Amino acid sequence: MTQLLYEGKAKQMFTTDDPNVLRVVYKNDATAFNGQKKASFDGKGRLNNAICTKIFKMLQKNGVPTHYVDTISENEQLVKAVNIIPIEVVVRNVVAGSLSKRLGIDEGESLGRTIIEFYYKSDELGDPMINSDHALAMEIATKDELVEIRRLALSINDALQNFFAEAGILLVDFKLEFGKLKETGAIVLADEISPDSCRLWDKETHEKLDKDVFRRNIADLPETYEKLLKRLEDVK
Amino acid sequence: MTQLLYEGKAKQMFTTDDPNVLRVVYKNDATAFNGQKKASFDGKGRLNNAICTKIFKMLQKNGVPTHYVDTISENEQLVKAVNIIPIEVVVRNVVAGSLSKRLGIDEGESLGRTIIEFYYKSDELGDPMINSDHALAMEIATKDELVEIRRLALSINDALQNFFAEAGILLVDFKLEFGKLKETGAIVLADEISPDSCRLWDKETHEKLDKDVFRRNIADLPETYEKLLKRLEDVK
Ligand SMILES: Nc1ncnc2c1ncn2[C@@H]1O[C@H](COP(=O)(O)OP(=O)(O)O)[C@@H](O)[C@H]1O
Ligand SMILES: Nc1ncnc2c1ncn2[C@@H]1O[C@H](COP(=O)(O)OP(=O)(O)O)[C@@H](O)[C@H]1O
Ligand SMILES: [Mg+2]
Ligand SMILES: [Mg+2]
Repeated sequence: MTQLLYEGKAKQMFTTDDPNVLRVVYKNDATAFNGQKKASFDGKGRLNNAICTKIFKMLQKNGVPTHYVDTISENEQLVKAVNIIPIEVVVRNVVAGSLSKRLGIDEGESLGRTIIEFYYKSDELGDPMINSDHALAMEIATKDELVEIRRLALSINDALQNFFAEAGILLVDFKLEFGKLKETGAIVLADEISPDSCRLWDKETHEKLDKDVFRRNIADLPETYEKLLKRLEDVK
Repeated sequence: MTQLLYEGKAKQMFTTDDPNVLRVVYKNDATAFNGQKKASFDGKGRLNNAICTKIFKMLQKNGVPTHYVDTISENEQLVKAVNIIPIEVVVRNVVAGSLSKRLGIDEGESLGRTIIEFYYKSDELGDPMINSDHALAMEIATKDELVEIRRLALSINDALQNFFAEAGILLVDFKLEFGKLKETGAIVLADEISPDSCRLWDKETHEKLDKDVFRRNIADLPETYEKLLKRLEDVK
């Protein structure tokens, strides 16, 4: 018997016969601004599943440990069950979104160096920004785990930047979640990497190929994600 | 000829005949919430000058490099001129204020470990919280300088906790500013340490002996600061 373990804003997580494996169902729902803006788009689940699958496979080929096991239908993956570390890890190469507001720097300015930010994953608190000291004091991660998370985040950034560059796309920023494998406790990349969780701009035109088209009412979401998927499929 | 170099919310900084020395005048003004709440209190400048003088002298005896040179009148100090590093360094031993709201933890809860926070010193941006990566990307400090700032902040915390403990006072949190000496470039503690920039609670009753009495309309500010000064004067 498999059961719904929990349902988030973008995905449902089901148990499977294997206690170490979960089934993820990518939903068609889109949300923004901590759930205040909501809509549903035919095809979104399928598109995110396809894009995320391509990315997880690429990362695993590059030696990044992920929770990814298999893609079993248009909108379903099998993943390893983890205990999610409640930190949203944001990696930034170019100024955009909240960073632009926080520091008063124009969107699109290149950062001289990659910025990693931690946000405490808590819908009630609105995912507040924290630093390593907060994470340690709240005992949501150990010092060694934070070092490992940072190392993984930077190597994922390298791999992703190269991958998207081959499709003529600039990786502006993205959000990661890490978890500890139920089986071994090892830290792996979990959750998803998709246009919901990345900012992706056409290298030449800076056309947005991510959820900002929904957040800012710029373009049709499924059309945009379809365009992105096509460009990623052209990468050999 | 000495001239007003700049005037902040709590102090005026004047040049002196020595280009490496400034004269600080402690004002009677009190502000809160990034300058939105304002008042003036007879005696505040004198009290902060007296308290800050005691603290800087104590820190220098404990080997902490500070900008402090001398106290030359009721409301004036001489200090070494520095280039201020535009980071407000907040050190926290007990949850209070913005941290309580940020993490949804009750005021007064002890933290298992000291938390250090960085805020980008910018009145226009409302002093946003940043992390080390932001500071490095904005080039407001180098990696070595951030390590040194952290080391100094922790050793100041140790010295201050002991000092206030002798007066029966709990050091909840406090804000520091560091600068680079105009003369040598060495990093020293600058600005002030006073009840304007600390949260100080009576160890037994948790009575507030700091600017929160003004922020939250709890008690008379000069009476509170006078009480604090008396207790610190009793420390041998
Ligand atoms: N491998 C995994 N094991 C257990 N939980 C996971 C795994 N991968 C992701 N999750 C969690 O599944 C939940 C559902 O995802 P999602 O719909 O994106 O939620 P949210 O609304 O928090 O963004 C999230 O809390 C996420 O952290
Ligand atoms: N030794 C120093 N040399 C130069 N500037 C200093 C020194 N110590 C403090 N300052 C700066 O003096 C200014 C005046 O102080 P204050 O009135 O507290 O200003 P603020 O309104 O920014 O809090 C602040 O910008 C502070 O950073
Ligand atoms: Mg999510
Ligand atoms: Mg000040």
